[in-house]
Amino acid sequence: MAGARTLRIGVAGLGRAFTLMLPTFLADSRVRLVAACDPIASARARFESDFGMPAYTTVETLCADPAVDLVYVATPHQFHAAHVGVAAAFGKHAMVEKPMALSLDECTAMIDATRKAGVHLIVGHSHSFNTPVRRTRELIDSGAYGAVKMITALNFTDFLYRPRRPEELVTDAGGGVIHSQATHQIDVVRLLGGGLVQSVRAHTGAWDPQRPTEGAYSALLGFEGGAFASATYSGYGHFDSDEFMGYVGEMGQAKNPADHGAARKRLATAASAAEEAALKAARNYGGALYQAPSAPAVPLAHQHFGPLIVGCEKADLRPVADGIHVYADGERSFLPLPPPPVPRQEVIDELIATVVDGRPASHSGEWARATTAVCLAVLESARNGRECRPAHQVGHNPA
Amino acid sequence: MAGARTLRIGVAGLGRAFTLMLPTFLADSRVRLVAACDPIASARARFESDFGMPAYTTVETLCADPAVDLVYVATPHQFHAAHVGVAAAFGKHAMVEKPMALSLDECTAMIDATRKAGVHLIVGHSHSFNTPVRRTRELIDSGAYGAVKMITALNFTDFLYRPRRPEELVTDAGGGVIHSQATHQIDVVRLLGGGLVQSVRAHTGAWDPQRPTEGAYSALLGFEGGAFASATYSGYGHFDSDEFMGYVGEMGQAKNPADHGAARKRLATAASAAEEAALKAARNYGGALYQAPSAPAVPLAHQHFGPLIVGCEKADLRPVADGIHVYADGERSFLPLPPPPVPRQEVIDELIATVVDGRPASHSGEWARATTAVCLAVLESARNGRECRPAHQVGHNPA
Repeated sequence: MAGARTLRIGVAGLGRAFTLMLPTFLADSRVRLVAACDPIASARARFESDFGMPAYTTVETLCADPAVDLVYVATPHQFHAAHVGVAAAFGKHAMVEKPMALSLDECTAMIDATRKAGVHLIVGHSHSFNTPVRRTRELIDSGAYGAVKMITALNFTDFLYRPRRPEELVTDAGGGVIHSQATHQIDVVRLLGGGLVQSVRAHTGAWDPQRPTEGAYSALLGFEGGAFASATYSGYGHFDSDEFMGYVGEMGQAKNPADHGAARKRLATAASAAEEAALKAARNYGGALYQAPSAPAVPLAHQHFGPLIVGCEKADLRPVADGIHVYADGERSFLPLPPPPVPRQEVIDELIATVVDGRPASHSGEWARATTAVCLAVLESARNGRECRPAHQVGHNPA
Repeated sequence: MAGARTLRIGVAGLGRAFTLMLPTFLADSRVRLVAACDPIASARARFESDFGMPAYTTVETLCADPAVDLVYVATPHQFHAAHVGVAAAFGKHAMVEKPMALSLDECTAMIDATRKAGVHLIVGHSHSFNTPVRRTRELIDSGAYGAVKMITALNFTDFLYRPRRPEELVTDAGGGVIHSQATHQIDVVRLLGGGLVQSVRAHTGAWDPQRPTEGAYSALLGFEGGAFASATYSGYGHFDSDEFMGYVGEMGQAKNPADHGAARKRLATAASAAEEAALKAARNYGGALYQAPSAPAVPLAHQHFGPLIVGCEKADLRPVADGIHVYADGERSFLPLPPPPVPRQEVIDELIATVVDGRPASHSGEWARATTAVCLAVLESARNGRECRPAHQVGHNPA
């Protein structure tokens, strides 16, 4: 393409989020990994060996590398704000993993720092990037089905029993399903509901004293204009709602129903918090159990975040991993969406559109701050037993 | 059985509710239809022809018939309170269809009238009678899975496009999905959550100006003790959540996915409100399109009211039409529940246990008033945009 250039990415944090994004970085020729940083020596060694590129010990050194155009901030949640600040100070664009940050003040500081530095800020990956979700939004914007009225989102996973570092089980340190998983679900629901959440009433549950952070929630959102949404999540490893998604998993992979309870069983092999953290590290990039993405990395289907029903005036739209069910007044149909050639290709699409082509980001800091505000309102509503009105809401802008 | 006697039932109202209960009355030898009343001559004629028993024009005459032990009040919702009052005045036990009544004052008057008369009051059928729901409650009461924490209930149907009389499209006259359908869903959710609802936040939708009553809602309930429930319903005839129930319908029947939109298509043949009411009447007992239950009336499976996930501390329980999925910490299993020999046999079980054996009713007036209070709180919360605390809550009593 005329004027196309390769975006050179420096990775801050070679942990779980990077492990999940790596297949995308490897397969999409519009980006290239040129540097990284991580406190763990084995991860740095693996990066240098795999790419022949430098892996630093600090974010500052990474950001100072002139080869880096954009810093992918994939450090633990509680460091996102500081590390985006470092990137901005060095004049680098930033893509920061969800959750954007743990407080609204941090979000605002990130927006201000990048704006002042004249660099772009994109928040993701989150599952609102998924093509079936975005195509659903386009179907809504087409006007063919009338206004969105009622959204129903569910997800039942084994999130709480995946191996964690100790702080991931402490809500104030960014642990629990509100910071890590509601960010996905609320981002999807906000995109489809138009973005402007006026009211949040929620209940949360923290039912395992061994893992004393939120493992579940149910939230009821009211949107400006009268639409509403119900968003329910459980990470307790019991019912798996992929049963309602044709046993296609979050990453677009085939799942085996016989794997019920696998996360708890694996976790039971760790005798202490330290062993659990080691179990997590072992599966991450550079760890002993790490499995490099096999090429070609074409998944079975798109990624998804659980059953989702978008009720419009004239149809219910139900995005799934391989397309969108349209249940209209008169007939039902299915819009197939073939698997993407590159997983999470949509993230690179937005990076290029924003950083290279200068178009406004959909997943901007302002957008993600609004999602963070709703997530924090979920926590606050549950804690105080009353409805909250989240601040900083911004609307979805039709493409 | 020693001491067993046949309960002689007089039917007040030969409409839709009776049509749905008739297979039960016909197949269960513990009850016998001995009289009826209805304002429609063709229904009365059919009853007299089918049973050789009298069909009167008024509830008073029916209740005066000494052959009647119990009056099944299946008249339109807005008459329930008055007709239970008539039954009580004649010293007859009453089983009143859901919804119990349209206001809490009416519910209280019904409770007082029957208590004063020394007769029993049972409210139903509702789907909380269904064996998979009641067995789920028994699994909870066994203590094997810990306390109930989070309930998720969905139902997406074509309720709003089934033929109606004009008043069934007016909320204050008892129309809409809150009075007719939330009664089922809330009754189920209350039974499984323990009964004592402390808070209700809800949004409702009335999106078809041609049918200007609530067609959808999403409600978030908080229970005493900290459990919570999300209950979502749409009657707009788009997505059909029986897709998540193996295409087994509400009545335990097999459904054909190709029937999408059938309710709207059928309704489109009615050119006026009068024609629509005639369409409804034609399918009811004594009508031109009425189909008598074929014997033997053994259904494919139990009745159900949509996808339902009951999250307990150590397992998610998911009742379906043919059993209960148990997704426990370590393994998943399925408790099969073969189809009942008589549909809705559970209703007759409770009638006999209460009226003949003198045991307390599970579906008592007090229980149903509490469900009505939650349903009215759903309407109030949606109207006023704030949380409500429903009155008159009573707890579930383990068997």
